[in-house]
Amino acid sequence: MSKYTIGVDYGSLSGRAVLVDVATGEELASSVYEYPHAVMETQLPDGTKLGHDWALQHPQDYLDVLSHTIPAVLKEAGVSNEDVIGVGTDFTACTILPVKADGTPLCFLPEYKNRPHAYVKMWKHHAAQDKANMLNEIAEKRGETWLKNYGGKISSEWAIPKIWQILDEDEEIYNAMDRFIEAADWIIWQLCGKETRNSCTAGYKAMFNKRLGYPSDDFFKALDPRLEHVIDEKFSRDITPLGGCAGYVTEKAAALTGLKVGTAVAIGNVDAHVCVPAVGIDGPGKMLAIMGTSTCHMMMGTTETQVPGICGVVEDGILPGFFGYEAGQSCVGDHFAWFIDNCLPASYYEDAEKQGMNIHKYLRAKAEVKKPGESGLLALDWWNGNRSVLVDVDLTGMMLGMTLQTKPEDIYRALIEATAYGTRMIVENYRENGIPVEEFYASGGISQKDPMTMQIYADVLNMPIKIAGSLQGPALGSAIFASVAAGKEKGGYDNIFEAARALGKVKDTVYTPIPENVELYNKIFAEYRTLHDYFGRGANDVMKRLKALMKSL
Amino acid sequence: MSKYTIGVDYGSLSGRAVLVDVATGEELASSVYEYPHAVMETQLPDGTKLGHDWALQHPQDYLDVLSHTIPAVLKEAGVSNEDVIGVGTDFTACTILPVKADGTPLCFLPEYKNRPHAYVKMWKHHAAQDKANMLNEIAEKRGETWLKNYGGKISSEWAIPKIWQILDEDEEIYNAMDRFIEAADWIIWQLCGKETRNSCTAGYKAMFNKRLGYPSDDFFKALDPRLEHVIDEKFSRDITPLGGCAGYVTEKAAALTGLKVGTAVAIGNVDAHVCVPAVGIDGPGKMLAIMGTSTCHMMMGTTETQVPGICGVVEDGILPGFFGYEAGQSCVGDHFAWFIDNCLPASYYEDAEKQGMNIHKYLRAKAEVKKPGESGLLALDWWNGNRSVLVDVDLTGMMLGMTLQTKPEDIYRALIEATAYGTRMIVENYRENGIPVEEFYASGGISQKDPMTMQIYADVLNMPIKIAGSLQGPALGSAIFASVAAGKEKGGYDNIFEAARALGKVKDTVYTPIPENVELYNKIFAEYRTLHDYFGRGANDVMKRLKALMKSL
Repeated sequence: MSKYTIGVDYGSLSGRAVLVDVATGEELASSVYEYPHAVMETQLPDGTKLGHDWALQHPQDYLDVLSHTIPAVLKEAGVSNEDVIGVGTDFTACTILPVKADGTPLCFLPEYKNRPHAYVKMWKHHAAQDKANMLNEIAEKRGETWLKNYGGKISSEWAIPKIWQILDEDEEIYNAMDRFIEAADWIIWQLCGKETRNSCTAGYKAMFNKRLGYPSDDFFKALDPRLEHVIDEKFSRDITPLGGCAGYVTEKAAALTGLKVGTAVAIGNVDAHVCVPAVGIDGPGKMLAIMGTSTCHMMMGTTETQVPGICGVVEDGILPGFFGYEAGQSCVGDHFAWFIDNCLPASYYEDAEKQGMNIHKYLRAKAEVKKPGESGLLALDWWNGNRSVLVDVDLTGMMLGMTLQTKPEDIYRALIEATAYGTRMIVENYRENGIPVEEFYASGGISQKDPMTMQIYADVLNMPIKIAGSLQGPALGSAIFASVAAGKEKGGYDNIFEAARALGKVKDTVYTPIPENVELYNKIFAEYRTLHDYFGRGANDVMKRLKALMKSL
Repeated sequence: MSKYTIGVDYGSLSGRAVLVDVATGEELASSVYEYPHAVMETQLPDGTKLGHDWALQHPQDYLDVLSHTIPAVLKEAGVSNEDVIGVGTDFTACTILPVKADGTPLCFLPEYKNRPHAYVKMWKHHAAQDKANMLNEIAEKRGETWLKNYGGKISSEWAIPKIWQILDEDEEIYNAMDRFIEAADWIIWQLCGKETRNSCTAGYKAMFNKRLGYPSDDFFKALDPRLEHVIDEKFSRDITPLGGCAGYVTEKAAALTGLKVGTAVAIGNVDAHVCVPAVGIDGPGKMLAIMGTSTCHMMMGTTETQVPGICGVVEDGILPGFFGYEAGQSCVGDHFAWFIDNCLPASYYEDAEKQGMNIHKYLRAKAEVKKPGESGLLALDWWNGNRSVLVDVDLTGMMLGMTLQTKPEDIYRALIEATAYGTRMIVENYRENGIPVEEFYASGGISQKDPMTMQIYADVLNMPIKIAGSLQGPALGSAIFASVAAGKEKGGYDNIFEAARALGKVKDTVYTPIPENVELYNKIFAEYRTLHDYFGRGANDVMKRLKALMKSL
């Protein structure tokens, strides 16, 4: 009798469940549920206004995902809940909320319904930037060594700036919360009735280190005396490595989801990190790029090395027993979308229509026949700042080489190439810091839909690129972790490595570097690197000065 | 009884005549005639193929302009040829042709009809680039001092590279020509039956210097032994300053044009230079920018100073008795047109149409409400290389500061601002070399049609900008010179200064710098200058390397 697990992937606007055959990895059914409240950026449901750069979510939406999608996949696959041995989830992060001791979100309580700080602060809530700036300044002054594990800078998106903003702006909410918890862990709590904290978000978003613990109380006190005991008061020092079992589906959760009471629940996880076993990666040196509006680069190493400009290195942060390295590019698909929306001339739309072609396809057809270097263009891919390896949101885009003969497809291709050079900077940065990068995998929308871009990446990186076999990488990854939570005895697996090898998938197509393109791109990348350092490392801070001037107006 | 002159302006695609009242400067009639052969870039009329970068014209078209437009303006104005006291012309330059001793163009002779080198080489004929490169190299090696009068580099567009190309590629044509003459002078020859050579083209395009003469025979011999006596064999050492009378309309020319035999004919002139008196400029320190697809900057000084990066300094080159300085920007209107054609999204066209607005107006309406620096963008205006002050065709465009919020109107405005910074570089370059620039005038299409651009120029330059009063600056300028050729006795003027003051016109509108914009642009210009020097003066030759790579493919 076949056994199954269900993985649920919580994205920014919807949740998606996938039901997977634990023996074969086959995805038998999937179901998507869009959050009714989506992202609240300007007001609460009752009309209470939000400030600039806010981004909230409603935790009820997360529960509704469970109650809609799990019954739907069971039904679609025609599978009995008797045969579902585990459930796993993954979430955006740091997406975090204040809750009572029993897990009840503060925003569920009538007295806090109209209080913005009672809601979920989404990963892209950027209103705590001043807190992040202060935190970095203080940490640097104090010579806090953990700072280097995060490329030298922590982000306003992370847990401490967010809770500090609550304390500063609504102390009553701060005092009313018993726990401040990642949605990744909160949803697990709802399923198995028990609070757990996963090693991934604790490490990448709350500065937890397996050997050293959190930053010291003394450090938190330096931020604000009221934060001295924030870890013990609002977080937890009890961190569970990924790949573990958090508990079992409760009666309440069974009623909500249609799962059987006692079904194994995997430890909470993060949408990018959970993709790693979904492509079959089971050890170090294999980089996975998850390519969407932005790109995350996940990789494992056997040492904890402080690599400058990465997002973080966390033990057990991706798979247990290894050091997980994360880097990122803040503008990839967004970059191409910007071009399509703002730069593509009317004549191209008309011509595409005449030829009965989709505009993206039309543009790609024009761009893909070009050789590397043929347009003479070179861009820096900083339309949304630079995450790795410069960690600088105030950098901006640059392009040069334009002539009166430059065509839209040349610009489009140059933007794609720029993101490939950005990825190569990340790869070379690891190598220069002694972390080998030996294989390259890609998942996410671009990897599936855009062969031209993937070939450019292979040529720029001079590495073959393997492509994720599933269109639903995160949900598949969660289902794989669920199979480990269930264990071999129940029909699952003993550990995540076995599960990854059995259920992770790549496509047959591999993008192989074309030697003559590699040679040309090596030359152009040398130019990219010079400009990257000139504009990005202080030789000419024109981008920052122009941005400051703009803000001063 | 009123007296009149006629000015005929020969542009790249058509000739335009204007009939002017010599007392008031009023333009009573105008007529345009498009060249039937336009620009021949791929083949001769008989189908003979042309090489890459060729651009030829047919001299018959120039004669047809006379026979069509002069009768037309006489008729339209209702003026008798008895009252027309002079005719003047201006031409693009260096637009040059091989002719027999009697002025007959070689291409009029049946035996040479199918020979590309027998035709007029237009200013934008660029197929002699290798000759220009060799010439510059040899001149530099020999330490030829005249080279510095041309910003250190002569152009492939000029007379000597063009005649050298003829010698090299079709020696029979070279030998068959008795004279190699600017179209500016050839058309005067057709009117008055006498060969003259004007000081403007001789100086700016054939390296003639009033005190030193031409480069030495020894220099020409160094180029090619057959060129040793090229000046005496094909050109002339008899140079006439602008503002003189070349002769009088012959019977043949009277029959062609409807003018009276004996009407005064002004010395040949050039389309940009002839605009200077048309705005009333009568002395040094007053810069005129003629703003069209590209921009020419004309100014006079009282000393011959070797200013780096200008197109040339020529005594009597603009008005007699002064040193004429010419600089240029190779991409201005072309730049904006490139943007409109290649970068303006379909949604803007749709929206403009909905609002019943012309697309240019729609775009300007969005761009003109922005403050300096508001977009955070900065561009180098090198889409067509840099003429002044870097004299480098291999430089290319650059833009930085782009974010996901960047809008098309931001890019459009940044391109306009870039050309204004380019003009400021030219102005500052003069000042730094001791040539004062005290007033600024603008003529040409952009000056007439684009108040936003003119205000940006005023703010960037921190100078009031006066705008040409005539839409037909060159033709008016030619008519002014014609009034001097006729002389006071005939109802004209004794000299060009008097004529300029009497007939030159500016509009009532002056664009005055707005102090707060000036301050902002000062800051941004400092950034422009840093990048200008970084990319343009050898610190990072990435643009040239990318161009070389592109050409190597």
